[in-house]
Amino acid sequence: MKKNVIVGQSGGPTAVINASLYGVVYEALNREDSFGTVYGMINGIEGFLNGQVMDMEPLELSGELELIKTTPGSYLGSCRYKLPEDLGDEVYGRLFDKFEEYNIGYFFYIGGNDSMDTVSKLSRYAESVGSDIRFMGIPKTIDNDLVNTDHTPGFGSAAKYVASTVREIAVDASVYDNKKSVTIVEIMGRHAGWLTAASALARREEGDNPLLIYLPETAFDTERFISDVSLALEKISNLVVCISEGINDGNGTFICELASDVGVDTFGHKMLTGSGKYLENLVKERLGVKVRSVELNVCQRCSSAMLSATDQKEAIASGAYGVKCALEGESGKMVAFCRVPGEDYWVDYVTEDVNLICNQEKAVPSEWITENGSDVGREFIEYALPLIQGKVNVPSKDGLPLFAYRK
Amino acid sequence: MKKNVIVGQSGGPTAVINASLYGVVYEALNREDSFGTVYGMINGIEGFLNGQVMDMEPLELSGELELIKTTPGSYLGSCRYKLPEDLGDEVYGRLFDKFEEYNIGYFFYIGGNDSMDTVSKLSRYAESVGSDIRFMGIPKTIDNDLVNTDHTPGFGSAAKYVASTVREIAVDASVYDNKKSVTIVEIMGRHAGWLTAASALARREEGDNPLLIYLPETAFDTERFISDVSLALEKISNLVVCISEGINDGNGTFICELASDVGVDTFGHKMLTGSGKYLENLVKERLGVKVRSVELNVCQRCSSAMLSATDQKEAIASGAYGVKCALEGESGKMVAFCRVPGEDYWVDYVTEDVNLICNQEKAVPSEWITENGSDVGREFIEYALPLIQGKVNVPSKDGLPLFAYRK
Repeated sequence: MKKNVIVGQSGGPTAVINASLYGVVYEALNREDSFGTVYGMINGIEGFLNGQVMDMEPLELSGELELIKTTPGSYLGSCRYKLPEDLGDEVYGRLFDKFEEYNIGYFFYIGGNDSMDTVSKLSRYAESVGSDIRFMGIPKTIDNDLVNTDHTPGFGSAAKYVASTVREIAVDASVYDNKKSVTIVEIMGRHAGWLTAASALARREEGDNPLLIYLPETAFDTERFISDVSLALEKISNLVVCISEGINDGNGTFICELASDVGVDTFGHKMLTGSGKYLENLVKERLGVKVRSVELNVCQRCSSAMLSATDQKEAIASGAYGVKCALEGESGKMVAFCRVPGEDYWVDYVTEDVNLICNQEKAVPSEWITENGSDVGREFIEYALPLIQGKVNVPSKDGLPLFAYRK
Repeated sequence: MKKNVIVGQSGGPTAVINASLYGVVYEALNREDSFGTVYGMINGIEGFLNGQVMDMEPLELSGELELIKTTPGSYLGSCRYKLPEDLGDEVYGRLFDKFEEYNIGYFFYIGGNDSMDTVSKLSRYAESVGSDIRFMGIPKTIDNDLVNTDHTPGFGSAAKYVASTVREIAVDASVYDNKKSVTIVEIMGRHAGWLTAASALARREEGDNPLLIYLPETAFDTERFISDVSLALEKISNLVVCISEGINDGNGTFICELASDVGVDTFGHKMLTGSGKYLENLVKERLGVKVRSVELNVCQRCSSAMLSATDQKEAIASGAYGVKCALEGESGKMVAFCRVPGEDYWVDYVTEDVNLICNQEKAVPSEWITENGSDVGREFIEYALPLIQGKVNVPSKDGLPLFAYRK
């Protein structure tokens, strides 16, 4: 009797996590000689524990699966559920009973660090009890912070959004070029600065905005920041500065925390604020120039308008590759990208031990950050530029993008 | 001797203010029998006073003019310069001396309320001194608040951006649908709620997000707001609420002002905050659910990815129509749109007395706002839907949109 397949999504959404879902489902449905039913788990492993699953085949028949390819967010829903460290915990028994109930032979989990932790634990538990279910991780995160892979699906589209939006913000900021102004753009990435670094792609030429870029990898000094901004304003009238939401003093204190414990409104409610807002006020007070801060917020991870065709293609291919490898007997692995050296951009799909990936974080290499800590070097541009290439045509209706929704 | 043409841009940028510039310049250059040189003024009337002008013809020859059509922001630069009320002020004499110096016969000014005030004053001054220079206003504003015109170029693209982004934010917010959450989206429009109302277009069906929409036209009551949110959370797990940045208590106090005078950071800097952030904290404290606020900020007026083809076409056509009317002798007018009743969307281009337009604001009609003040009715949808139709192909290079920049 053929074994069934189950696939889930976990962690924060991206613009292409559904493209990876498409890759897994399409590949599995098209190997009907090898697999039984292809299930999706609703809200990840947490929903699965409550028996929330759906049959994915009807989506292919109805054409909905095609639409999933360009739908941002997590079609199957997500969760932030951490399995216990103790593999003797009763939850493992319950999970494997459920796997048996659904005759699952292949388990695919699309996610970041925490999701790979789930894959690691399930595959280790399987080994300990002699289960032959195969567990495969499919990478996704806009943060691009997974180790042992050149990059991660989701990053390319988010980077394209960040770069094009920062370019547009720079155009917008320059209309009153006879008056000095500072625009601070706050970009996602609490611990790794990859996405903030992508703002460097917005430049058309040397000396172009954004003139200053601050990553969480370098200790942030507010006094040096004020002096950097002051100097930059001598070179350019309308300065654009990009900062990571995670900029910190190097000793574990986020810059936004300098503000958050004092601001209180007229009703006595505590006002939490971001690093961009904090620096906006600081620059206004210290330099007396016009300042604005812009938080790119969730738009950077859910914009379908800035899908990178390269990113989408790789997301689909990594899902499909995971299916192929699981079928060939691999388990406890994550699909990874290996960039082939050479003139033209090319990646090989490989698998890596998921135990060596989960709970790790890949930072931007320090040698890619300029010595003064306020920019990234050419190495980063060469690394990131191929990942944002190509436009994707998103289906639309009544002038707006058309997405797939779970019934 | 043929008279020369001058065109300027003023006020905040939009996605299509340059399309209007294209319309004026292209039309004027292609009526070479009627016009001499076509000048652009740099940074509006303020730059013109300092002799900052450029010849626009080389842009057509170099192909740059084509690129201007899809470039957001103000290609010529902008200003916020208010001419004195007293037409006897010496600045008028200086301006008309400059007009004579450049042999100007036709003056086009692309902008909103304040820019129409400039057109009004200059045309009245011209009349008082017997000058035959013709002054024509070309409308633009994302706020859509100009009177005596069905709508305004810039609104359609901003509305398309708001609707598609709110739809994406709703998708993003729904991934953890087993946990209640509120997402508050703050949209531009200090006094008029047109753009905030456009978030209603994001709905696919009745009862879909955004479930609550608050415009500045209705007095905002924080207690009723909390009760609205609480009730909505009984119907939907992941609630999206859209608010105008200008929501106010009906007596002149903006909701954001309830917070801004008390928040102070650890260094004693005053922390200014927006209405969305204020309500985020309020909901968190009062309802104890997960809350996030997203400020769409300048992106809603400078995104090229969400250009509406209808909006772009009308922006170009209004520039060209202004040239035609000025040539036929009109002055002291603004180009306006008159929607022709009928099944299919159609606008006639007309001119209206600029004196009746400047310094006025068109609010969303109260009968288009639902009685409880937390939504807009079907009339608004029917009004706005035609304005966001059609995609525009923006030229790109290296994976990013390619824009025109003034040298």
